[in-house]
Amino acid sequence: MTQTPLDYSAAGVDYDKIDPLKILAQKAASATQHNLAGHGVSEIPASRGESAYVMDLGGTLIASITECLGTKALVADAVRAISGRTHYDSIAQDTIAMAVNDLITVGATPLSVHAYWSAGGSGWFADEERMRDLVSGWQKACDVCKVSWGGGETPALAGVVEEGRIDLAASSVGVIPSRDRLTLGDKLAAGDAIVLLAASGIHANGVSLARKLVERLPEGYATRISDGRTYGEALLDPTTLYVPVTEALFAAGIVPHYSANITGHGWRKIMRHPASFTYRIHTLPDVPPVLSFIQQHAGIDDREAYGSLNMGAGFALFVAADQAEECARIAREAGVPAWVAGRVEAGAKQVVIEPLALSFSAEELHLRA
Amino acid sequence: MTQTPLDYSAAGVDYDKIDPLKILAQKAASATQHNLAGHGVSEIPASRGESAYVMDLGGTLIASITECLGTKALVADAVRAISGRTHYDSIAQDTIAMAVNDLITVGATPLSVHAYWSAGGSGWFADEERMRDLVSGWQKACDVCKVSWGGGETPALAGVVEEGRIDLAASSVGVIPSRDRLTLGDKLAAGDAIVLLAASGIHANGVSLARKLVERLPEGYATRISDGRTYGEALLDPTTLYVPVTEALFAAGIVPHYSANITGHGWRKIMRHPASFTYRIHTLPDVPPVLSFIQQHAGIDDREAYGSLNMGAGFALFVAADQAEECARIAREAGVPAWVAGRVEAGAKQVVIEPLALSFSAEELHLRA
Repeated sequence: MTQTPLDYSAAGVDYDKIDPLKILAQKAASATQHNLAGHGVSEIPASRGESAYVMDLGGTLIASITECLGTKALVADAVRAISGRTHYDSIAQDTIAMAVNDLITVGATPLSVHAYWSAGGSGWFADEERMRDLVSGWQKACDVCKVSWGGGETPALAGVVEEGRIDLAASSVGVIPSRDRLTLGDKLAAGDAIVLLAASGIHANGVSLARKLVERLPEGYATRISDGRTYGEALLDPTTLYVPVTEALFAAGIVPHYSANITGHGWRKIMRHPASFTYRIHTLPDVPPVLSFIQQHAGIDDREAYGSLNMGAGFALFVAADQAEECARIAREAGVPAWVAGRVEAGAKQVVIEPLALSFSAEELHLRA
Repeated sequence: MTQTPLDYSAAGVDYDKIDPLKILAQKAASATQHNLAGHGVSEIPASRGESAYVMDLGGTLIASITECLGTKALVADAVRAISGRTHYDSIAQDTIAMAVNDLITVGATPLSVHAYWSAGGSGWFADEERMRDLVSGWQKACDVCKVSWGGGETPALAGVVEEGRIDLAASSVGVIPSRDRLTLGDKLAAGDAIVLLAASGIHANGVSLARKLVERLPEGYATRISDGRTYGEALLDPTTLYVPVTEALFAAGIVPHYSANITGHGWRKIMRHPASFTYRIHTLPDVPPVLSFIQQHAGIDDREAYGSLNMGAGFALFVAADQAEECARIAREAGVPAWVAGRVEAGAKQVVIEPLALSFSAEELHLRA
């Protein structure tokens, strides 16, 4: 490659500009927790800064979250011209996955989902094929996750959302049947095993980079990747829903010590837990062809690739070492390839990917105020 | 007025195009309710089609909702150049009001709110003054409603959201302490009184019309309205938060028989309840000057004005006749002007506004599948 490597700031996402607001908002949000006392409700303090918020309503633990798809619908819009399909059934699954895959990290069983479909004008909803795909994909993903689609909002916001585009998000409410099921990190310990769950492809993170790359490809989204599919269609493989895995684990009596949804920040998310541990990875997954393609054609090294993309691992479970193999087996039985990938060790906070002789230090992940 | 009257389709919102999707989505959503059975949870069926979704978790009733601001932030963006203020503290309150004012209609006490702030690029978050106003306004509205700000999402979505703009939404979770508190409409009866709660101004509905009108005004948002304020600043009065009213009513042992948040469709929303009743209004509020200004300058008649704008009444409570005066008094003590405005009668489904010799028939409100 003779071109400049693409990275996130080249792709238009500048985390330095977003993070100060996030920290300001996190502090203000935390200051409102006292409002619950008058209702006889309390928050689970450790859930602040985690992926979902948990409240204790007289012993009933309720988790909630709102998450957005990001820009993946722009890929669907572009690929439709090549494939002749809207791909909004997949996009619907992606959007729900963004919410429920975060909700389950705290130990919750998702119960309901609300849709947020905010279009750039009323005309968006007049495309019947796309609309039917979006609705049917949403319903199907709800059925896979065993959640009820409780409602939603479908505004037409010309002037806010771009003409012909849609801003998709989902909120979800779940229940944690008992305090033993809370996975907020207090159980994580040196000696625990790291079980990774396979990703179906790019999921819905790293999409800005993937879209930027298209500008470099003479055939754009129609470019064939190593498995013979087009780049565009491979990008649109829907995000894996990990709810059936966590539900199967709970049914088998296995409560992870911690969980991390591998989204933005790629494998750096493996050290999401606030404490200092070394996360040593010994076994890598096969990298989905679409992600190998991106790494190669964007000209990025392993540090950049594993630090921003899922590279084949979409979810990390941290479990007692003697439950690791069973955990992986249960996940596979629930339909998601899984493997014992590494272990948690005492030591400086870092992710060490031994097969790649690569490590990420704590300074490379800033998620909390 | 010699100009063509402005109405909603001229203002770019075409409900005919949105509604078929809504109905398709409502049917698909309803089909997912069976997913709850495996979790030992059930939905409250009457909450489908109401403003918030309610689930019964072993006796704990949880309500949830996701709502969007709409296009009101575009007004703030334009008025900032005149007023020198960002107005995003007000915009934050508007966004939270859209969610909690709907959540309380089912009898819920709101507990938590999630923020959804989806910007047209990372640069949006780099404007420190606007960012601080948004955060402080959000926190303040949470404090007024006694809810905990549980978290949120702040994506930068260049290509989806317009450059320099932000798509704002809120989701909220609440609890209904007992089944007696559910206000899903089974209690509504002929003879009930209609208590209306005052609106602070346009709130966040009818904003497309208000923005369209600016194009006709030589001085635009800087035009003075009857109270001496500028049109732009008056539009930005934040939406009234009605949570303190419903909480005060509950504390006094008054459970409304039904509630309706008066948003899109204006006073037609008074007949939101699915049954056939005649809603006869005998006492009108003073119309906020900004709404009188819109009616006059948009050249719309009372039918159009009351059928699409709140015209001074932002929330309707339907209560037992012998509790009506006390209900209005409690609302006023909670800081919101309120009055006994009419009564529910047996008869054809319609809203009759006697002082205006105006009525809306059932055919003029289609909200349900």
